[in-house]
Amino acid sequence: MRAIADIANRLHLDEADWEPYGRYKAKLDLSLLHRPRQQQGKLVLVTGMSPTPAGEGKSTVTVGLGQALHQLNKNAIVCIREPSLGPNFGLKGGAAGGGYAQILPMADLNLHFTGDFHAITTAHNLLSALIDNHLHQGNALHLDPKRVVWKRVVDLNDRSLRRIIVGLGDNNGVVRESGFDITVASEMMAILCLVESFSELKEALGAILIGYTYDKQPVTVHDLGAEGALAVLLKDAIRPNLVQTLEGTPAIVHGGPFGNIAHGCNSLIATKMALNLGEYVVTEAGFGSDLGAEKFFDIKSRKGGLHPDAAVIVVTVRAMKYHGGVRRSELTQENLEAIKRGFENVKHHARIVSKFGVPFVIALNRFADDTEAELTFVEQLCDEQGFMVSRTEVWAQGGLGGVDLAQKVVAQVESGASNFRPLYPLEAPLVDKIERVATEVYEAAGVVFSDVARRQLAECEANGWGNLAVCIAKTPYSFSDDATLRGQVSGFQITVREVRASLGAGFIVCLTGDIMTMPGLPKIPNALKIDIDEQGTITGLF
Amino acid sequence: MRAIADIANRLHLDEADWEPYGRYKAKLDLSLLHRPRQQQGKLVLVTGMSPTPAGEGKSTVTVGLGQALHQLNKNAIVCIREPSLGPNFGLKGGAAGGGYAQILPMADLNLHFTGDFHAITTAHNLLSALIDNHLHQGNALHLDPKRVVWKRVVDLNDRSLRRIIVGLGDNNGVVRESGFDITVASEMMAILCLVESFSELKEALGAILIGYTYDKQPVTVHDLGAEGALAVLLKDAIRPNLVQTLEGTPAIVHGGPFGNIAHGCNSLIATKMALNLGEYVVTEAGFGSDLGAEKFFDIKSRKGGLHPDAAVIVVTVRAMKYHGGVRRSELTQENLEAIKRGFENVKHHARIVSKFGVPFVIALNRFADDTEAELTFVEQLCDEQGFMVSRTEVWAQGGLGGVDLAQKVVAQVESGASNFRPLYPLEAPLVDKIERVATEVYEAAGVVFSDVARRQLAECEANGWGNLAVCIAKTPYSFSDDATLRGQVSGFQITVREVRASLGAGFIVCLTGDIMTMPGLPKIPNALKIDIDEQGTITGLF
Repeated sequence: MRAIADIANRLHLDEADWEPYGRYKAKLDLSLLHRPRQQQGKLVLVTGMSPTPAGEGKSTVTVGLGQALHQLNKNAIVCIREPSLGPNFGLKGGAAGGGYAQILPMADLNLHFTGDFHAITTAHNLLSALIDNHLHQGNALHLDPKRVVWKRVVDLNDRSLRRIIVGLGDNNGVVRESGFDITVASEMMAILCLVESFSELKEALGAILIGYTYDKQPVTVHDLGAEGALAVLLKDAIRPNLVQTLEGTPAIVHGGPFGNIAHGCNSLIATKMALNLGEYVVTEAGFGSDLGAEKFFDIKSRKGGLHPDAAVIVVTVRAMKYHGGVRRSELTQENLEAIKRGFENVKHHARIVSKFGVPFVIALNRFADDTEAELTFVEQLCDEQGFMVSRTEVWAQGGLGGVDLAQKVVAQVESGASNFRPLYPLEAPLVDKIERVATEVYEAAGVVFSDVARRQLAECEANGWGNLAVCIAKTPYSFSDDATLRGQVSGFQITVREVRASLGAGFIVCLTGDIMTMPGLPKIPNALKIDIDEQGTITGLF
Repeated sequence: MRAIADIANRLHLDEADWEPYGRYKAKLDLSLLHRPRQQQGKLVLVTGMSPTPAGEGKSTVTVGLGQALHQLNKNAIVCIREPSLGPNFGLKGGAAGGGYAQILPMADLNLHFTGDFHAITTAHNLLSALIDNHLHQGNALHLDPKRVVWKRVVDLNDRSLRRIIVGLGDNNGVVRESGFDITVASEMMAILCLVESFSELKEALGAILIGYTYDKQPVTVHDLGAEGALAVLLKDAIRPNLVQTLEGTPAIVHGGPFGNIAHGCNSLIATKMALNLGEYVVTEAGFGSDLGAEKFFDIKSRKGGLHPDAAVIVVTVRAMKYHGGVRRSELTQENLEAIKRGFENVKHHARIVSKFGVPFVIALNRFADDTEAELTFVEQLCDEQGFMVSRTEVWAQGGLGGVDLAQKVVAQVESGASNFRPLYPLEAPLVDKIERVATEVYEAAGVVFSDVARRQLAECEANGWGNLAVCIAKTPYSFSDDATLRGQVSGFQITVREVRASLGAGFIVCLTGDIMTMPGLPKIPNALKIDIDEQGTITGLF
């Protein structure tokens, strides 16, 4: 690992532009957002086809592409999300990329890193405490304890906290049902990733909906007067974190909102700062393009005035077989027929990216079990469609394994073909916006609204929230809201069963299917395998 | 503020000995504990008389004495606790010292600092999640859900979380009553402050009692197998934090266990490291000497083999009047008679410190309202008793205001008069140890044990925990367990109503009176006055 000062030097930063957090991490100063620069960097979004539950290596390709661009002497910066701590102690160890295309220092990144998530947890829970204290101390705002929508968060997998009763005992506040989500599901996480200054941060925090009065009027953080204190708790978390890839490529790792009930991208501040500092900025969005890219385009890019220059759609032989109908236990067997069926899924993702006006390259991310026949077949299918395609082997080879991909990405960017525009105008009614995403992105036949959702959407419009973006929470394993309907499906209906207003983040969350906002631990948690020796060396975390 | 590298240079540290956390904080490497050195530093404990609820400036004198020793060209290091974040958003802003005798950077120290408390919160709650997951996933250890003693923590004042029911809903774990304490009350905080290595840390974490089986056998973290993962979460928190005083004196700020249900001192690692690095180490313990100093001597010093060379007993005219029977609203009026009565309290604290064989200096910490007649009178009372006394004005004057105190402390240290020994042998039965603290330190007539406490103590002895130290949780405002009995009181009984086993920390907590382990917020929380502007300048926090 290079000293973080060396990485800062690569970006031509002055000493005042960054603060060290240990030897290999730094916080970047917000003034870098406003430094005049002759030419803005080019923005490349890495997205993917519908994944398998094992993941298709999108982060690995993102990191590897950054490294490969350096091989081409492009000053590239990788911009990704911070991983959540909790899941590392659950099913499997954490990661940020993998193999020879990963972010360092790995252990720090997967534990407390620079404390951003802890700051968000603390700010979120301070607000919760202030709300319960308000109820306890006279409730001047007439907040209905049964209509408080703000819960608490913890950055752990803890199913027992999903639904709890608080306030038991004498003088311990008002008894009511509440619960905890995992920190990445906090609206404050989404907010941190969509603002560009302290004043915007305070405004967004102030706009958070905390509940309703007895006569059903919305109550916000601003009504409580807490946005200043909450912003103070986020004063360092708002600054992006500089680290490095295994090959010393600068990486800015910042923020990590959920990809379902939030928009699933790294922070706008980090992305814009990187565009000020680098020639190429490679970033990613959660899940497949139906979820992550749609939100990256319609929510993040629109909010920040970003102009994505190109996209990379990560595909794997494995995922094509999965979406071609093959069982998980048989994914390692060669199966060209299944690939052919699964390629329909790839074509759909290509249509989605094209709908936003962004040129793309298909990154065929090679796994050890893939046969040459399979890989060649996928390339042939892409050629038939006129898709630019590149095999990547960045996991095994680092940047060198992505040079061809990098060249093709550069070609797409330099073609100037990007004609980016969001899918829908914000001015459209919420129902229309939901229907456009469902029919044009998911290619659903239509949208079914539950009675509850229809009433909630009408209330949102009545409350003046109709011109917010929509953030649809849906399974990533299908274009539909049924995770078992893999591959390319059509003729399905999307059912919106409930709607939540994230007024601070600026979107209306539409829940389809069961969306888990607090994971549980498995029977044998990974935590039980993790250890540290007398020299501080960690085992079992990855 | 000086760059942290300058402070590290003052301590003759190599670059490998510390890691920067921002420009003004650093983490110190554990190897500094084992660096051979010709001469160990001298250890000075700052304690106090029974306080008023407003506090008597013990931390301020601690910081000021460190600064004053530098004025005498002594290489001194100040070692204090990290403040808890939660209370800053409650009744009043935070602090670490005050006036011209404080620790910098103040805002960082009172917010997230280097993340130590967040790490403890996370480790504590990971254990909680693992326990509830164990109950949910078959409960192989036969843990009785009604006898789980391990709760959760949050570093906030949140009364609504004191008593909660977890696990509601389908497949969300086992429904049971539990609750949250504030993070400083976590046994893991006490453990972090009493171990000296990763192996000791893991052993102590493994020894934590989490509950009892259905047939009442104790169950520990080691039975779950989680100590490795918990230690990993504390890998950075275990390293002490280097900062500076307003005058550039090196300060090591590390750990912050509660002064009632825990031992209330900064970490043993920090203190021992400072003894390796400085000529004089000035540290403090919570509350008056009946609570803080007793635990510093009987728990921390015994555990770490420390040899305190001298003590400072901080007294104030205000506290003497308060303990002389004056109402809080009349404390600013001159009252020599009340001072005379209140001085009995000072004499009692002097007896306590002497009982441990440690020579002392009385620091008369001057406040603006004190009259010259009052100050002179206190000095005269001290002279009559043969107490070395020194007026300190470090709040107003910084180190210069404590030079006389520093000279007297040096004289006491250099006299070699310290003949430190703990009060009781660990081998004595728990009941005997409690009675010795009560009768010899508090000067109680005796101890009353509730039926519950008597049964619990018998169980502790039966479980083989009889040779642990005792940690008595008692009000700091009286030597008795009744906060209203101020001043010097005698003939009272101490009632132990409940006992808790902190097997990881190595002590049995004895609860007397009502001990609050989760504070609440006031009607108008300080949070509502806190703000931050576009340049990141904070207001209302202090």
